[in-house]
Amino acid sequence: MPNQPQSNYFISLDEAKEITQSIKIPIKEEIITIENAHNRILSQDIFSKVNDPPFDNSSMDGYAVIYSDTIQATNNNPIELKIIDTIAAGTTSKNKLQSGFASKIMTGAPIPKGADSIIMVEKTEKKGQIVKLFHPSFQNYIRFKGENISKDQLILQKGTILTPRHIGLLATSGHSKISVFKKLKITIISTGDELISPGKKLSPGQIYESNSYVLEGLVKDTFHFPIRVDVVQDSIKQLKTQLDKATLNSDLIITSGGVSMGDFDIVRNIMESDGEILFWRIKIKPGSPPLFGKWNGKPIFGLPGNPASSFVVFKILIEPWLKSITHSFNNNKIIKAKLLEDIKSKADFQIFNRVYVENNGHEMVAFTKTHQGSGNINSLTTSNGLTLLPPGVGGAKNEIIDILLI
Amino acid sequence: MPNQPQSNYFISLDEAKEITQSIKIPIKEEIITIENAHNRILSQDIFSKVNDPPFDNSSMDGYAVIYSDTIQATNNNPIELKIIDTIAAGTTSKNKLQSGFASKIMTGAPIPKGADSIIMVEKTEKKGQIVKLFHPSFQNYIRFKGENISKDQLILQKGTILTPRHIGLLATSGHSKISVFKKLKITIISTGDELISPGKKLSPGQIYESNSYVLEGLVKDTFHFPIRVDVVQDSIKQLKTQLDKATLNSDLIITSGGVSMGDFDIVRNIMESDGEILFWRIKIKPGSPPLFGKWNGKPIFGLPGNPASSFVVFKILIEPWLKSITHSFNNNKIIKAKLLEDIKSKADFQIFNRVYVENNGHEMVAFTKTHQGSGNINSLTTSNGLTLLPPGVGGAKNEIIDILLI
Repeated sequence: MPNQPQSNYFISLDEAKEITQSIKIPIKEEIITIENAHNRILSQDIFSKVNDPPFDNSSMDGYAVIYSDTIQATNNNPIELKIIDTIAAGTTSKNKLQSGFASKIMTGAPIPKGADSIIMVEKTEKKGQIVKLFHPSFQNYIRFKGENISKDQLILQKGTILTPRHIGLLATSGHSKISVFKKLKITIISTGDELISPGKKLSPGQIYESNSYVLEGLVKDTFHFPIRVDVVQDSIKQLKTQLDKATLNSDLIITSGGVSMGDFDIVRNIMESDGEILFWRIKIKPGSPPLFGKWNGKPIFGLPGNPASSFVVFKILIEPWLKSITHSFNNNKIIKAKLLEDIKSKADFQIFNRVYVENNGHEMVAFTKTHQGSGNINSLTTSNGLTLLPPGVGGAKNEIIDILLI
Repeated sequence: MPNQPQSNYFISLDEAKEITQSIKIPIKEEIITIENAHNRILSQDIFSKVNDPPFDNSSMDGYAVIYSDTIQATNNNPIELKIIDTIAAGTTSKNKLQSGFASKIMTGAPIPKGADSIIMVEKTEKKGQIVKLFHPSFQNYIRFKGENISKDQLILQKGTILTPRHIGLLATSGHSKISVFKKLKITIISTGDELISPGKKLSPGQIYESNSYVLEGLVKDTFHFPIRVDVVQDSIKQLKTQLDKATLNSDLIITSGGVSMGDFDIVRNIMESDGEILFWRIKIKPGSPPLFGKWNGKPIFGLPGNPASSFVVFKILIEPWLKSITHSFNNNKIIKAKLLEDIKSKADFQIFNRVYVENNGHEMVAFTKTHQGSGNINSLTTSNGLTLLPPGVGGAKNEIIDILLI
């Protein structure tokens, strides 16, 4: 048993989340241009610098006219108006439109003074400076100043992960530079004497190391900066060197392997002797062995070595914690789907089965494609979701449950 | 009316998709290391180089034993076995286990010859070289050679977009380098005299240009390489220069603006005079004006200038087409959700309303948050889905429909 308080041994996921939430990483800000803003995270609320649109404008190519002039227009009895000018997008008209006249107008061009409606070009016929209208004009083809966004309106909240359309909104509202959170530097260390880098020849008893590659990618997917370290063999001395280096280089350390009950579980051993353990083991399946604590004051997650376990712990514990640091949220990652099979419960444990979710044309359904062993990385690559079930609760065939899309 | 066949004017989305599918872009391959494989696209099927696991191994820290030795073990009547060795992960045992003996074994270490089961350390007590078992051993704590993946098994298909867990599978199966598709170079050109780059001062009649930023990001989200060109004012000469440059520099050209019925719609004008138009206008809302064709032999999409329109056309037409070029698929982007409001139909048109989808605890529901004007970029940033409805069909309140997550 390690040297942490008994109460933080083998705790619930909620308790583990509470403990991680009590540790805050300081995070800096930086100013960047919107060209470089893809998948960066806003560090300040954004208010629009302008009205959108900035002026009343036409949503059609056609003619700006006075509605009362056009009410009688039909195919058989067209109304004729005199064209006084042409307003292209990007220009303005100095004329005030009088009854009996029309301004030719392009989509996006400002509505001239005096006009109150638009007739689209398809419903007209032009002869010299005369336009014939075959239909009354439309008042709803005017887009009014500020109808999308008002000047000084809050448009994006601190913590927003900037997707392409958010960057478009920043541009529309006049922002060319914005303040974002600096990426956290996250060191990733895999441990284990049995681990060999892919590409080399396997000797008996050895397997290829994969967790550091998965964790590196998961850190990229949370839009932070991974520092992947070559495998640390099961040597306490070598691990200590890497941990000390990581404390200087990075904001957070994630290890994999070496946290279980084995004699050579060096991450647990070194944390017991020289680190600060805040909790060890969580009642989840897969992924029960993780450890959380501090090394030289820097937060450290000790993830299990089994690939399904380390993936699940990252997704359900580390990712939400990283999001909380940047005030970020996700709004469409947890969906409802019908289970096509039973999922076994385990007393007090939360079960994160890897499932394949699909839209079968009638409803969303979820099922497992492979065995759910925590060592089976194939259970991750043949899946696109994790079951989210309450502690101690399984799932019954045909039950509709929450699924986290992965 | 432009100079393309009448039959390709104002066509259905399905017809537009068929026409785009008939145009193939040549795409090259390159070899990369798995460290650089995040979000790259496999250009060849991948087969495992090894069995996973490569050997029978223990899924627990404990003792490898012979099951028949342990059947009688209980808390009150423990069985005693003599420990002959310790097998760490990464090592192998030369001993063959005999009845009455046990090998101490760590998670992931190879099962010694003669053993057929594992007792976890928690159910034992060690005294010197003797271990007491308080429970029969477990045969299912052995992970068998190849139980996850067999050597030479097809593990990932050509076209797979490599997420972190796919990269982990590549590592596990012994691949340090893989063949991926080279990113397509895609030039993005916004047109319009009214467009000013964000950060500058707006004059009357002007708006900030945003589409090129959105399209740049959408190209990044499809894992290709965008080349964003500064706004082309509504000058045919300048547009021709940029298009000619783009044909030399890139595999595909995407323009925005200038494809409608206006006098200054220069993309349509130049394509009519000097390009090859394969279709113009699609029966979708928003986004009906797009044009598709070739400029100097390179495919070109002329998207509408309205931000909601250009976004929707990219997501429903260009993105699926780009995916088809790399043989890629998406498996969890179209979900089912209940509409909380009616969606109006329009004869023959497919309606892509921007909706907010949420899991309300009982079911997935979808509703609009803003007006659906095609000029309203805010309708995109306050949404996370697009309604997918058949041509000519609207949606009724409480109906369950398909939603494309965006």
